[in-house]
Amino acid sequence: MKIIVDAMGGDNAPACNVKGALDAVKELGVEVVLVGRGEDILKCLKENGVADLPAGVEIAHADQVVEMCDNPATAFKEKKNSSLTVGLNMLKEGRGDAFVSAGSTGALLSAATLLVKRIKGIRRAAMAPVVPTGKGGAVLIDCGATAECTPEYLLQFAFMGSYYAEHVLGRPEPRVGLLNIGAEPSKGTDLQREAYQLLKGAGDAGRIHFVGNVEAREAVYGEVDVIVSDGYSGNIFLKTMEGTGGFLARELKGMFKKNLVTKLGALCVKDGIAHFKKLLDSGEVGGTPLVGICKPVIKAHGSSDAFAIKNAIRQAAGFAASGLIEDIAENIEHMRLPAGDRSGAAAD
Amino acid sequence: MKIIVDAMGGDNAPACNVKGALDAVKELGVEVVLVGRGEDILKCLKENGVADLPAGVEIAHADQVVEMCDNPATAFKEKKNSSLTVGLNMLKEGRGDAFVSAGSTGALLSAATLLVKRIKGIRRAAMAPVVPTGKGGAVLIDCGATAECTPEYLLQFAFMGSYYAEHVLGRPEPRVGLLNIGAEPSKGTDLQREAYQLLKGAGDAGRIHFVGNVEAREAVYGEVDVIVSDGYSGNIFLKTMEGTGGFLARELKGMFKKNLVTKLGALCVKDGIAHFKKLLDSGEVGGTPLVGICKPVIKAHGSSDAFAIKNAIRQAAGFAASGLIEDIAENIEHMRLPAGDRSGAAAD
Repeated sequence: MKIIVDAMGGDNAPACNVKGALDAVKELGVEVVLVGRGEDILKCLKENGVADLPAGVEIAHADQVVEMCDNPATAFKEKKNSSLTVGLNMLKEGRGDAFVSAGSTGALLSAATLLVKRIKGIRRAAMAPVVPTGKGGAVLIDCGATAECTPEYLLQFAFMGSYYAEHVLGRPEPRVGLLNIGAEPSKGTDLQREAYQLLKGAGDAGRIHFVGNVEAREAVYGEVDVIVSDGYSGNIFLKTMEGTGGFLARELKGMFKKNLVTKLGALCVKDGIAHFKKLLDSGEVGGTPLVGICKPVIKAHGSSDAFAIKNAIRQAAGFAASGLIEDIAENIEHMRLPAGDRSGAAAD
Repeated sequence: MKIIVDAMGGDNAPACNVKGALDAVKELGVEVVLVGRGEDILKCLKENGVADLPAGVEIAHADQVVEMCDNPATAFKEKKNSSLTVGLNMLKEGRGDAFVSAGSTGALLSAATLLVKRIKGIRRAAMAPVVPTGKGGAVLIDCGATAECTPEYLLQFAFMGSYYAEHVLGRPEPRVGLLNIGAEPSKGTDLQREAYQLLKGAGDAGRIHFVGNVEAREAVYGEVDVIVSDGYSGNIFLKTMEGTGGFLARELKGMFKKNLVTKLGALCVKDGIAHFKKLLDSGEVGGTPLVGICKPVIKAHGSSDAFAIKNAIRQAAGFAASGLIEDIAENIEHMRLPAGDRSGAAAD
């Protein structure tokens, strides 16, 4: 298994990207290709006490870097020698099994869609992170790749999310819920009402295990394994979780740091605090898979440290080994509506 | 100041509603009218050691109760003698200054809109709870009254939310943000893009202090005083906050209850834990105002205890005394678009 790593993307690149990749080779038994400025990568290797390129580590030189200020829709074309474009072209050509980047989300999404392409019949790629829940996490699909969706997109997200939960997370018969503001089929906007009927059809046909609408609160508690949403609402859901977690973690920290007695209190529950931190740490999960693209692509968090990069590489390897993409391609006929039935706001 | 209280609505009615109303009369110096089954209310008064009706407490008999299983759109018509319908008619007739109910949200919203009516020119009433944030809370408007919105609705929500923050919460020059998935004006769906321009216009004219788009995470951190949203997304935001808070509170409880040492830890930070609980307790805030109706209406949480009912009555009194409704009515011309400019999904 060979993972192509964008060495230059992210707030802590290239140092943490290189260190994370080295750790992945050592600990996970994968090979990596580090894509980026050769001299910078070699310098980072040296800083990690590595003089010669170790077995399982390659460098692919790319002298440009896509910056956050670049236009995400066109950056990969304007910077043909960027680590993003070079890395994704390698993926397309089969010179690696998956691609990991901590760079601009928008640029990665555009580049993956236009260079590597979507699976035939899939209308939109989706970003599908695993969010922490009361029952071990759920796949949230989509969390922002496509703000405006049609019911057909949501149907495809439901299938892809279900397959991801099954193949990559190892959940048998994942419970699929449609994110909504009430349990009844009549709730939400036209988008949710129409999508509900499509998902119900897929459920009745035994193709996914659709359990109905799920409210945001119950989704956090872990009532479903897959949370189906348009990208706008999914992003609100994800960022609200992150914000609330961060806000409460800060309050908690303040509570323990007040004085000597409260510091003693912190000592008494230090294992619990470690578990709590782990719950809130996006680095633990790794990154966000782009589902619907022909090859596995993982978006690591922009603020990824070496640990988060290593976990994103682990996730990329799991994605590549899962057979997920093949399964989506084989079942595409069940995820498409006849041309006349494709309603909704976004053009195809 | 006289507050009309639906004695029969909510999970803990009538006992907690009556107790909360009695406490409000004692502690807040308001008068209350308890609307509902006379004999049930008198029984609750007796249970609270009150034999004769105390000064400041009236009973208005209504022998029907709107249940959660009733059709919310028509319940107030089908049950003309319900505490909901009788109470709102009293409000309309000026026999009280505000109305508080912990019953069905949908039924309250329909009944308030159709019996008491909206402020002239306001297209949709909004539910505008104060959500806890890193900086003392923000008004979230709308959190679910209208799932599908037009840009004009959002413009009106922005004005009403800003006035609410100023008049009721006492925030001078409230910062108004549009809930979105990125800071740039191009982010989100057509609804957000069009609303952004309307809000910017109102900001440029100096009528509200519009600070631009606000992402969900920054909204939780307290970057704005008013979070403007369609009802669907606002509901996702609110319920995700509640879910994440509840989930983490449960984890925290588990952490402290593990063994004797962790229980000692809990003792060391007991003030902090009390503060933490207060942060997460919806009863602390009171209820959710229905903004845009001609008279003040407060929806108390369905699970309200006496403390929450008392706080909802406090909030209703503050709303009634604030001059908010008059201010909205006086400035209505700035919140309306010419007929030709009213685009969007929902019919007027």
